[in-house]
Amino acid sequence: MNHPAAAFATQKRALPEAFVAALTACFGERFSMAGAICDAHGKDESMLDPMPPDGVVFAETTEDVQTAMLLCQQYRVPIIAYGTGSSLEGHLLALDGGISLDVSRMTRILAIHAEDLTATVEAGVTREALNAALKDTGLFFPIDPGADASLGGMSATRASGTNAVRYGTMRENVLSLKVVTADGKIVRTARRARKSSAGYDLTRIFVGSEGTLGIITEVTVRLYPQPEAISAAICNFDTTEAAVACVIQTIQLGIPVARVEFLDAACVRALNAHSHMDLRETPLLLFEFHGTPASVAEQAAQVQEIARDHGGQDFSWATAKEDRTRLWKARHKAYFAGLQMKPGTRALTTDVCVPISALAESITTTSAELRASKLPSMIVGHVGDGNYHVMLLVDPNVPADYEEAESINRRLVSRAIQMDGTCTGEHGVGLHKMQFLLEEHGEDALDLMRQLKNAFDPNNILNPGKIFPAASSA
Amino acid sequence: MNHPAAAFATQKRALPEAFVAALTACFGERFSMAGAICDAHGKDESMLDPMPPDGVVFAETTEDVQTAMLLCQQYRVPIIAYGTGSSLEGHLLALDGGISLDVSRMTRILAIHAEDLTATVEAGVTREALNAALKDTGLFFPIDPGADASLGGMSATRASGTNAVRYGTMRENVLSLKVVTADGKIVRTARRARKSSAGYDLTRIFVGSEGTLGIITEVTVRLYPQPEAISAAICNFDTTEAAVACVIQTIQLGIPVARVEFLDAACVRALNAHSHMDLRETPLLLFEFHGTPASVAEQAAQVQEIARDHGGQDFSWATAKEDRTRLWKARHKAYFAGLQMKPGTRALTTDVCVPISALAESITTTSAELRASKLPSMIVGHVGDGNYHVMLLVDPNVPADYEEAESINRRLVSRAIQMDGTCTGEHGVGLHKMQFLLEEHGEDALDLMRQLKNAFDPNNILNPGKIFPAASSA
Repeated sequence: MNHPAAAFATQKRALPEAFVAALTACFGERFSMAGAICDAHGKDESMLDPMPPDGVVFAETTEDVQTAMLLCQQYRVPIIAYGTGSSLEGHLLALDGGISLDVSRMTRILAIHAEDLTATVEAGVTREALNAALKDTGLFFPIDPGADASLGGMSATRASGTNAVRYGTMRENVLSLKVVTADGKIVRTARRARKSSAGYDLTRIFVGSEGTLGIITEVTVRLYPQPEAISAAICNFDTTEAAVACVIQTIQLGIPVARVEFLDAACVRALNAHSHMDLRETPLLLFEFHGTPASVAEQAAQVQEIARDHGGQDFSWATAKEDRTRLWKARHKAYFAGLQMKPGTRALTTDVCVPISALAESITTTSAELRASKLPSMIVGHVGDGNYHVMLLVDPNVPADYEEAESINRRLVSRAIQMDGTCTGEHGVGLHKMQFLLEEHGEDALDLMRQLKNAFDPNNILNPGKIFPAASSA
Repeated sequence: MNHPAAAFATQKRALPEAFVAALTACFGERFSMAGAICDAHGKDESMLDPMPPDGVVFAETTEDVQTAMLLCQQYRVPIIAYGTGSSLEGHLLALDGGISLDVSRMTRILAIHAEDLTATVEAGVTREALNAALKDTGLFFPIDPGADASLGGMSATRASGTNAVRYGTMRENVLSLKVVTADGKIVRTARRARKSSAGYDLTRIFVGSEGTLGIITEVTVRLYPQPEAISAAICNFDTTEAAVACVIQTIQLGIPVARVEFLDAACVRALNAHSHMDLRETPLLLFEFHGTPASVAEQAAQVQEIARDHGGQDFSWATAKEDRTRLWKARHKAYFAGLQMKPGTRALTTDVCVPISALAESITTTSAELRASKLPSMIVGHVGDGNYHVMLLVDPNVPADYEEAESINRRLVSRAIQMDGTCTGEHGVGLHKMQFLLEEHGEDALDLMRQLKNAFDPNNILNPGKIFPAASSA
C-alpha cells in the first residue's frame, strides 16, 4: 500500500538536456542524477511515500545556490532546498521532479559576536553544531526541534522545540537571513540590530516560507548567556488532566520556566524501552528551570507547590549535567522511541497548538479518541505553549490504518482550529497540512499568501506545490 | 522657512465629485472636508510641514474601513490610516492628498482572554486605555512608546519603548491582526495560538508596514502577569561612556532587567524643568526590575555591583508605586520636555539601533558631534536594545538650523548602518527615513519590498509615497 503522496504531483517532466549539461559544467561531481542520491533526497520523516527529485546539487556557497537558481529559473525547473531531511510533513518531496538543492555541506560558522549575543552561520549548520561551536563562549542557542536539524531548515519551517516557552521560536530568534531569490539575487533581509522598524519585515517573510519564496543560505540568530544554574525535574501525575492543569496554572502565573514538557504514559513507556530510562509510567511533566541559583530554587518551589495542588508527586530531580543531558536526549528521541512501539510501522505525527485555556479540553478529548482506537499512539507536547504532538503508528500493509490515523488527525486539527488554534505549531505545512489551511485562514488570507508567492516566484519554481495546492500558486 | 516635505509630493488632485458624493452618502457627518479637520490630520510630531488630506473619514467599525477602502479603490484615491497622530517621521502626511481614515473612534476592547494572556482590541484603543481595561485582571500590556499611541498605529510602525529589552516589541507581541486589504477584503492574519507554522507570517507582514499594505482594524496582543514585585532605581554616572558600559555588561550577563533607559545630562535638565523632578543632572540610567521579591532584590544587587564597577553612584530607589509612576511619566514626556529647552523651536528626533557592542562608540561619537553644534540637543535611549534617540531643536526661521540638524542626523544614521545597525529602531520610515533605506537594505532587498507592495496594493492607494519613493512603488 502506498500512501497517496503521488496524488499531489502534477507535471513531472524530464530535465532539459541543456540544463543538465549546464549544471554538470558548473558543479561537476557536486551535481548528481544517481538514483540512490535522488531517492535519499525525496523523502523525509513523514509517512508519505518518497518522491525523488531528478537531480541533486550539493551547494558549498551562496554563489553555488545562486548559480543553481539562475539555471532553474532559465529552464523553469523546480528547485527544493534540502537541509537534513528531518521534515515531518513532506516538505522535501519532489512532486514535480526538479532539483534538490542540498545545503548540508554549507557548515561554516561565519561569525560569533559573543558581545552582541548573535551568531551567523551557513544554512547547513545544525543546532548541535552551533552549540558545540559556542561551547567556550558562555552562550547557547536554545531552539531545539527533536531532530538535529539545520538552521536553514529550522528557519524555513519556523521551528521551535522544548525551550520555546521561555526563549521563543525561530520567529523570534532569527535576526537576519541571507536569501537567494527566485531570480537569483542575493539579499540580506535585515541588519544585526535587536530591533528595527526600517521597512517590511523581510526576515519574517522568509522564516516559515518552506523554501517557496527563496532559498536561505545564511542565518543570523540570537544567543543567550548560559544560565548560572539549571535544574530539571520530573513530576508524575495520576491523570493527563492533572498534569495539564498544572502547566496551565504555571504559565498563567508567569513563572519563567525554561521547559515544560508533557509525556503521556505511552510515551514514557516508549522512552523507557528505547532509551533505557526508568521513569514511572504515568503521565508526567519534565521541567527545566534556568536562572541564578536562588531564582531556580524559587521557581522550582513555586511549581512544586502548584503540582502538589493538582496531585502531582514529589519532584524527582536531575541536577547533575549528565542526568539532564540523558533526560533531554531521551525526550528528543521520543519520535524514534515511539516508532519502536510496533516495529515495522510508519508514523503519522501531528502538531497542533491551541490557546492555553483550551489545552486541557484539546488533550483530553484527543486522549479519549486515541484510547478508542486500536492504533498504537502516544502524546508528547511543548505544553507551556499550548503545543502538542500525537504519534499514530500505521501498518504500511493495512489501508484501514492509514484511513483511521488520518481521520483522527483531521478531527484533532479541526478541533484545534475551532478553539482558535493552529494546524501546526512548529512542523510547518508541507504537503500534509495543506488540507487545513483554508479552514484555518480563510480564502481571503490564503489569497494574500498566494499574491506574495506570485510576486516573489512568478514562475513557481521554488518548492512548487507546497503550502498551497500547486494550481492556485501558479 | 518651510521644511521641504512638499518635495515628496507628486500628484495631488481634487477628489472626484462622485467619490465625494458616495462618501457623504455612506458616512454623513463622519466624512468631512472641513479645513480645520483636514489640517489636523495632515500633521504629526515630526518637523515636517503639514500636508493635509482632502477629506477625513471617521470609521467606527471594520466595515466602515472596508466601505471607505472600496470607494478609494474604485476612484483610485489615496487612503491614509490615522490613529493618534503621534508619528515622528511624517507617516501621516497626505503627499498626494486623498482621504485620512481616522480610526480613533474604534475604541472597543473586544476580548480580554485573561487565562490565555491575550487581548483583542479595535485599532483606535491606546496603550493606556488597554492597560486601564486590564487593571483588575492582574495582567498588563508592556509596550510603551512615549506617546499614548493607538494599538493600530503601534502595530503599523512596529513600535516599542522602554520595556522592549525584557518583553520585546510589537513584532513579538502582536499575535494576530484584522486587516482591510486594498481590494476591500477583511482578513484575519492568524489565530490566537502562541506559535504557528501554518503558512506565511501575514501578521508580521502587516506589523511595520505603515499603512502601505492594508489598514489594521483589530489587534490581538500578548499580555503578561503583573510582576509580584517591581522596583525602579536611578543611577548617576560621571560620563556617558561609563553609563553605557554598565548597560552593555548588564545585557551581556543576561540579567533580565525590565527597563534600562539612558538619559544624558541635557535630558535630565529638561525633565527636571518640565516635570518638576529633582534628578541630579549627570548622565544617568533608569532601571526597573520585575519578578518575585527575591528575584528583584537579586537583580538589583547584581546591577548595582556592575554600576559600581563603572563608577556609578549608589542607586536612588523608587519603590513606591507613586514614585515609579512619576518617574516613568517624566521619562515618557522627554519629547515634550526636550521641546521646552528652547520654546518656539521644532524638533528633529532621530532613532537608531545598533548591535550592543557598538553602542558605546555610537553614542560617544554622537555626543561629541552634539557638543560641537550650537543646536540645543539631548540623547535618550532604550539602551538595553542598543536603541537611542537624539533630539535636535531647530529655529523654524533659520534655514541653517535645519541643514545642520539634518546633517548631524545623516551622519549619525550612516554610522549606525555601518555598524550593522538600523536607521530606525522603533519610529518607522515614514517620509523622513526613506533616504536611508537603500543604504541599509540594498537595492535587491528594496526590490523585494516593492514587489510585496505591488502585489498587495497594485494601484498604490495605501499611504502612497511612504517607505519607498512613490515612483518606485507605483
